[in-house]
Amino acid sequence: MTDFIFRRQFTIEWGHCDPAGIVFNARFFDFFDASAWLMFGAALGVPAHDLSKTYDIVGIPLVDARAKFIAPAKFGDVADMESRIVQFRRSSFEVAHRMFIGETLAVEGLEKRVWAARHPDDPLRMKARRVPPEVVAKFMRG
Amino acid sequence: MTDFIFRRQFTIEWGHCDPAGIVFNARFFDFFDASAWLMFGAALGVPAHDLSKTYDIVGIPLVDARAKFIAPAKFGDVADMESRIVQFRRSSFEVAHRMFIGETLAVEGLEKRVWAARHPDDPLRMKARRVPPEVVAKFMRG
Amino acid sequence: MTDFIFRRQFTIEWGHCDPAGIVFNARFFDFFDASAWLMFGAALGVPAHDLSKTYDIVGIPLVDARAKFIAPAKFGDVADMESRIVQFRRSSFEVAHRMFIGETLAVEGLEKRVWAARHPDDPLRMKARRVPPEVVAKFMRG
Amino acid sequence: MTDFIFRRQFTIEWGHCDPAGIVFNARFFDFFDASAWLMFGAALGVPAHDLSKTYDIVGIPLVDARAKFIAPAKFGDVADMESRIVQFRRSSFEVAHRMFIGETLAVEGLEKRVWAARHPDDPLRMKARRVPPEVVAKFMRG
Repeated sequence: MTDFIFRRQFTIEWGHCDPAGIVFNARFFDFFDASAWLMFGAALGVPAHDLSKTYDIVGIPLVDARAKFIAPAKFGDVADMESRIVQFRRSSFEVAHRMFIGETLAVEGLEKRVWAARHPDDPLRMKARRVPPEVVAKFMRG
Repeated sequence: MTDFIFRRQFTIEWGHCDPAGIVFNARFFDFFDASAWLMFGAALGVPAHDLSKTYDIVGIPLVDARAKFIAPAKFGDVADMESRIVQFRRSSFEVAHRMFIGETLAVEGLEKRVWAARHPDDPLRMKARRVPPEVVAKFMRG
Repeated sequence: MTDFIFRRQFTIEWGHCDPAGIVFNARFFDFFDASAWLMFGAALGVPAHDLSKTYDIVGIPLVDARAKFIAPAKFGDVADMESRIVQFRRSSFEVAHRMFIGETLAVEGLEKRVWAARHPDDPLRMKARRVPPEVVAKFMRG
Repeated sequence: MTDFIFRRQFTIEWGHCDPAGIVFNARFFDFFDASAWLMFGAALGVPAHDLSKTYDIVGIPLVDARAKFIAPAKFGDVADMESRIVQFRRSSFEVAHRMFIGETLAVEGLEKRVWAARHPDDPLRMKARRVPPEVVAKFMRG
């Protein structure tokens, strides 16, 4: 468990919701992804879109994602999301997300992502690379 | 494990893909959802959009979703998806999805969904209801 | 031209962008839609999701939409959007959107929307209804 | 007006629809985009995802898009879309889309797109390039 917790607040849009009047399930993974990038930007002090240039990576692609949908969210609800890295491994890490609507925990997410560079032999492929220690350190600021 | 396997084929669109040139992770959950509905339609012989009327349900909302991203999919790739219900419980069921690009298993998904009716006391809430035995039977046609 | 201008700022996400590295065109219509609802909420002093209850409408569906894509927007860009109603007609209105990236006008949008209630004879259809004068007045605060 | 008409059929998904129970407006621009690419693939006999390699372009980005929403489409509706190029200019062209639900014209779209290569001085920018005459010819097969 790392120390850095990234928080953001946003409002559920009409276009996020399905005919049942609640946020369509796939949209939560959009929310998780946006938070993961923003968390790195905030923790590292580098705008999210500059991470690839600064660290010579292609991105932080998902290899595993999971969500538990506990309570529905609907149009106009104010969502409070908090995200943190729960574990760093050599070239991957796990991000836990919790989204609250008011006091209610609505959704929990868990993502396993890879620190990925262009594959040296094939520009269309990616290759996991060691997460730089200074990156890990930025999430441990106790 | 049930016997009915639903298969569909579709082509990855430009708009499904992200700046890394591969399908953006959240899009796979759109693919899973579409297959889950289509599978019910095919197994029950009722168009997916008539399930709610025929069975007096609001929908089959997700309570848990998981995906493993094994190989990337990119613009123009032809995706073969197969979906089946791996377990029925009283008022819920689990759907397993596998998406292949050619011979390569690209993504595995596992969804837990609920057979949900309108809550009798509150039209904005849903309530899990027992999956009708005739629905279960349609997936077991050995 | 009405007087009320709604402004919001947001940051372009990785998941908004396509393999060319720029915001995928359809996403701008998501942005327009969100701003249209928020503008009504702000102008009328009613949360967007309560508009349908407060005014007994189903929504403000689009009948015509147009966008000019002038300059690209990319991951991490900070977008400033301003939206205003350029014309009210009996049961419809036109919303103009302008999205800036820094000083650059990136996208212009024009939407024609309808003030729509449930059709009295068919709950699945909508029927245009006169925009209440007090709604129009709220956008004219000269 | 060119001669080549591209047609495809698809079924409206639950996830395409909004709380009013109809296709969310921005989704139609996803549909248009997919058809535009597929039309080029079909007319030129080159898979859509190989167009950029075959013709050394980055893509066919939109500069202007318009839609008229005439009748709603809802979950389970079978959509028939037809797309054709209504005009070629030096480095741009206009695509007209019509989407039918059964016999009903539901949506009309008009897109102006550019035949775009990487900018020679800046890999992040695009530059309009003359549409090759052999490309234009493929759409005129009278």
